Amino acid sequence: MSFQFAQKIGTQSICALALLGAFCIAERVHAEDAKSRPTVADVLKASSPSDWRPLDPENTLYLEMASGRVVIELAPQFAPNHVANIKALVREGYFDGLDFIRAQDNYVVQFGDASETKPIKTAQRTLKQEFATTVKSGMSFTALPDADTYAARVGFTGPFPSARDAKNENTWLTHCYGMVGAGRDADADSGGGTELYVVIGNAPRHLDRNVTLVGRVMQGMELLSTLPRGTAAMGFYDKPEQNVPIKSIRLAADLPEEQRAHLETLRTDTPTFKAVVNAVRFRGGDWFKYSADRVEVCNVPVAVRQHPQ
Amino acid sequence: MSFQFAQKIGTQSICALALLGAFCIAERVHAEDAKSRPTVADVLKASSPSDWRPLDPENTLYLEMASGRVVIELAPQFAPNHVANIKALVREGYFDGLDFIRAQDNYVVQFGDASETKPIKTAQRTLKQEFATTVKSGMSFTALPDADTYAARVGFTGPFPSARDAKNENTWLTHCYGMVGAGRDADADSGGGTELYVVIGNAPRHLDRNVTLVGRVMQGMELLSTLPRGTAAMGFYDKPEQNVPIKSIRLAADLPEEQRAHLETLRTDTPTFKAVVNAVRFRGGDWFKYSADRVEVCNVPVAVRQHPQ
Repeated sequence: MSFQFAQKIGTQSICALALLGAFCIAERVHAEDAKSRPTVADVLKASSPSDWRPLDPENTLYLEMASGRVVIELAPQFAPNHVANIKALVREGYFDGLDFIRAQDNYVVQFGDASETKPIKTAQRTLKQEFATTVKSGMSFTALPDADTYAARVGFTGPFPSARDAKNENTWLTHCYGMVGAGRDADADSGGGTELYVVIGNAPRHLDRNVTLVGRVMQGMELLSTLPRGTAAMGFYDKPEQNVPIKSIRLAADLPEEQRAHLETLRTDTPTFKAVVNAVRFRGGDWFKYSADRVEVCNVPVAVRQHPQ
Repeated sequence: MSFQFAQKIGTQSICALALLGAFCIAERVHAEDAKSRPTVADVLKASSPSDWRPLDPENTLYLEMASGRVVIELAPQFAPNHVANIKALVREGYFDGLDFIRAQDNYVVQFGDASETKPIKTAQRTLKQEFATTVKSGMSFTALPDADTYAARVGFTGPFPSARDAKNENTWLTHCYGMVGAGRDADADSGGGTELYVVIGNAPRHLDRNVTLVGRVMQGMELLSTLPRGTAAMGFYDKPEQNVPIKSIRLAADLPEEQRAHLETLRTDTPTFKAVVNAVRFRGGDWFKYSADRVEVCNVPVAVRQHPQ
């Protein structure tokens, strides 16, 4: 099974690379055994423990609300200064008692200090933007074989959807569902992590390279996506009493073991992840009558699960 | 302003057509006046009354919930039999008192009769699928100039995002945010409109040509996107008491004038709509630092507004 699908992705990858971002017009693969194609669930069931890694406690945030916990993994490879600053803000308790102040349908929810008056102790209020970064050795990238509307190449770096330019020189995170970014004003360097937003709708990819993305929600998205939508411009809540309180944000590493979530995520630099990609590209089973044989980066699931023990 | 942008779209369209669906690698347009590029709001403000059309009362549904009204426009050009059947179901009161029974995060909400026991009077329970249809003369199609991961061509037919094959022979609606589809079982012909779902997350384009899409939510999406997520498999509600009741669904034409919503939508077969497309492709103003110069079909807004009178 995995060999068959490895062959398919191999063929199509070559095609996509040869045309350098061009639509691959090669004939679509019509496997005779479409009915028996593995689903994502099948692939995950057949995975081995080494296909998974625990979330990094030094880069994992727990955002606590009355409705529950939202788990965010930060992306220091892409936004080292913002990530360091957000961790500093978290450690000085900056977010505790602040609120979600905006929920715009099919777009983002946003939290922070609307008044911008809460004192900051050791962290910075603003930072130079980190919209994109140079590709560094040791940075994993599992490229997807299909054309993307917005970027020359798209794929995954760790659990994060990312894009690269045609020359493979620069890379940036892409605005998929659940991605977390640092809000800013008109000045590119006016963000810093004191206001963070989370994508709750169709991927607003036009924001790519316009905002510093800092991480991804790994668990608890439904607590954010169901927040009441704000009725003021851009989905801001009309009145302060509509704001949704944040109890606290903590770094996993700062909590005792028994208070941590113990989640793990599927590694994206593995044959198992490539099999996941193929499972969503080549749909089979009883229900699907047509397989797109393609997938867009924001439609590839990166599995998260409770550590088996 | 519109001449300038018409030129741009002209150039890029030719390029895209010449390569037949290939990524257009032409140099991106770097207007010197990026700061003064019009926004969607600018374009709409400059529109004329003839750029808009009222929703068709004969194909507009009002779904009434405790939280308010959801307005859906049906797409008889794409799914004539399903649309006729849904109208028949509506007129016999089939949906009144049924429930939303499923809300799966980043995917769909779904309503209908979970028990499948509610009697149907004149309508059909199932119909032959209408996943795609042949392109007919008189069917408008405003193509987008940018590459799409899933289809040879994408664009708009009326207010509906749609796709076409490379030969321009077949067309189908695409699964963007707010699109409404007829749920089915494994058999392609097992749907019919008694169970309808609405996309509430990132566009699940792999469903294209696998389900009969029947229309689009034109107003009230926030009432659906914030429904509590179900905790059973596929987001179904665990217990019947979690279901969210539907008071009624009515056809606009069947209501007296004073109870109708009087919405109108931007026509997509107009230069004004092309200017909207360009406004989201070529971003300017003070905030944007980088313009993608491209747009994906599910990121193009189709404006809906209250009729000015």
